[in-house]
Amino acid sequence: MDSKHSVPGRGADPVLDSGLVRAIGIDIGGTKVAAAVVGELGELIAIDRRATPAGDGEAIIDLVIRMIRELSEEHDVAVAGVAAPGFIDVTQSLVYYAPNISWRNQPLRHRLETRLTGMELTVDNDANAAGWAEFRFGAGRMVSDMTMLTIGTGVGGAVVVGDRLLRGGFGSAGEIGHMRVVPGGLPCGCGARGCLEQYGAGRALLRMANEIADAGGIGLPLAAARAEAGGLDGHSVGRLIADDDPGALAALRELGSWIGQGCAAIGAILDPQLFVIGGGVAAAGERLLGPIREAYLAHVPARGYHPEPAFVTAELVNDAGAVGAADLARVRAETLGAAAGL
Amino acid sequence: MDSKHSVPGRGADPVLDSGLVRAIGIDIGGTKVAAAVVGELGELIAIDRRATPAGDGEAIIDLVIRMIRELSEEHDVAVAGVAAPGFIDVTQSLVYYAPNISWRNQPLRHRLETRLTGMELTVDNDANAAGWAEFRFGAGRMVSDMTMLTIGTGVGGAVVVGDRLLRGGFGSAGEIGHMRVVPGGLPCGCGARGCLEQYGAGRALLRMANEIADAGGIGLPLAAARAEAGGLDGHSVGRLIADDDPGALAALRELGSWIGQGCAAIGAILDPQLFVIGGGVAAAGERLLGPIREAYLAHVPARGYHPEPAFVTAELVNDAGAVGAADLARVRAETLGAAAGL
Repeated sequence: MDSKHSVPGRGADPVLDSGLVRAIGIDIGGTKVAAAVVGELGELIAIDRRATPAGDGEAIIDLVIRMIRELSEEHDVAVAGVAAPGFIDVTQSLVYYAPNISWRNQPLRHRLETRLTGMELTVDNDANAAGWAEFRFGAGRMVSDMTMLTIGTGVGGAVVVGDRLLRGGFGSAGEIGHMRVVPGGLPCGCGARGCLEQYGAGRALLRMANEIADAGGIGLPLAAARAEAGGLDGHSVGRLIADDDPGALAALRELGSWIGQGCAAIGAILDPQLFVIGGGVAAAGERLLGPIREAYLAHVPARGYHPEPAFVTAELVNDAGAVGAADLARVRAETLGAAAGL
Repeated sequence: MDSKHSVPGRGADPVLDSGLVRAIGIDIGGTKVAAAVVGELGELIAIDRRATPAGDGEAIIDLVIRMIRELSEEHDVAVAGVAAPGFIDVTQSLVYYAPNISWRNQPLRHRLETRLTGMELTVDNDANAAGWAEFRFGAGRMVSDMTMLTIGTGVGGAVVVGDRLLRGGFGSAGEIGHMRVVPGGLPCGCGARGCLEQYGAGRALLRMANEIADAGGIGLPLAAARAEAGGLDGHSVGRLIADDDPGALAALRELGSWIGQGCAAIGAILDPQLFVIGGGVAAAGERLLGPIREAYLAHVPARGYHPEPAFVTAELVNDAGAVGAADLARVRAETLGAAAGL
């Protein structure tokens, strides 16, 4: 169901309406495209959500243009950021490759700018945009160095170092889910083996839960749920976790352990003050954070000889990608403006 | 043997002498302490090397103060950077822990500043300082994002992202040698297991070379060298590598393969344009870079869907730590000066 509305109670604030810069953020997701008008403080001024024309790259571009046009007619906005899945080039213009969308070497920024006269566009990776929102307006707002892992079907990543989003030399930094954790391990959709997301993502949780169910024992409620539903899905495992079912918690602990081990390796390189865990599984809260911290401490190099990071769950759940994309576009426009002496 | 001299042919350049800022850089190594006066272009204006009073932390501090005093009497320098092994805090003041020196929570910067009136001090990790020198004046000078691995007894690391040295939220980023590459692998001096430096450092090369020697076959020349010298050391293995001995090259290839696999994992997070390989083993040049590249490409996620980094050996071999420490101190003083409106 599509929805479009101004956010109640927003937009009438005299400070927010006093000329501070607003930006549009678009998040192209697998099921929906979210477009938001976002203020400097991360506040949602308007939000529009439409179903993604899945698999049809041209229809997605048409939809994004339509949504930006409609929002910019109603709101005074001159910059827009688009968050897309996949690898984005370092000039934030080109989508090298987007899984699930028929894009390869797609000049997305140029395609949009030619049809949106006067609108300044940027393109970012969707996990980076969501992580940036978390850094600016969520769990990461008090630190300078933050690493976010978004645990969904895969493991998405976003890295902030010294108050800046880490984009990398070619634009595809922060692909934490594809850090190898097991030599010769499980094959990954990326073509490599042993990637973290094969051990620490939603699919791995289901695999472990199914294995525990099949092995009986503490997995009996899991097995019952499996028999009842004809197979365990994320919803049923999530419900069993919320009920503190021992089998489901064992599967969650194994996932958390892999995430914690991954964070120990990441920490040796990035040394963040904070790890933020996002995505659907993060709803498990301390049931997940506990095993992550435990595994991190068991595997961190030189434990006790330097400060350890904190582990928390994400605070922004809805529309973080759109909020982050808008803020990145605004920050970029301001930086370019400052560099040009404006 | 201690040595102290002004570098011939330097210091008389009218441009270099026209008021450009110079800084002192100190590198506290395991066998020697190097102190240099360094210009803005990375040029060595004077260099002083003394034997390290190994294991005597207080004597090291006395020596560093003496060397800075002597150089600052002869040269107009107001800032100095000290590169030390171990974990440095994020304010660049405190050495949390330095292996081989009896320092733990040593307030090095304060200790030095109280005895060096008028001198502005900073402290950096030694691998970070050497990597920064490589980035500014060596192999990394044309890129914005560089990762350096220094292969010695261990694997040192330095990371530059977006033209800035990555220090991390607590000051100990870039500990690449302690990224885990094998779950439950070989024990490491850091207390963890399976760290990259147990597979990709000089000690691992010797272990592999000795194993190949013991197994005979293509290791016959290795075995002969081992029998002759009563054991293989770095020098003898290095000589056999330079002679293209098949057994020694096999050991080097295994080391290179681990480094390349590590770089694939690092690349997923940092996405550098360039990997620089430094340290003694880097003298093997293409004999080492070839296996590194091959392993990197065999393990990189989503190969072919984004640009790949280059792999080169370090250009700066001597005194890179002192040059980098001086430049970091100078850059920091300029940044603080600019922030203060100076």
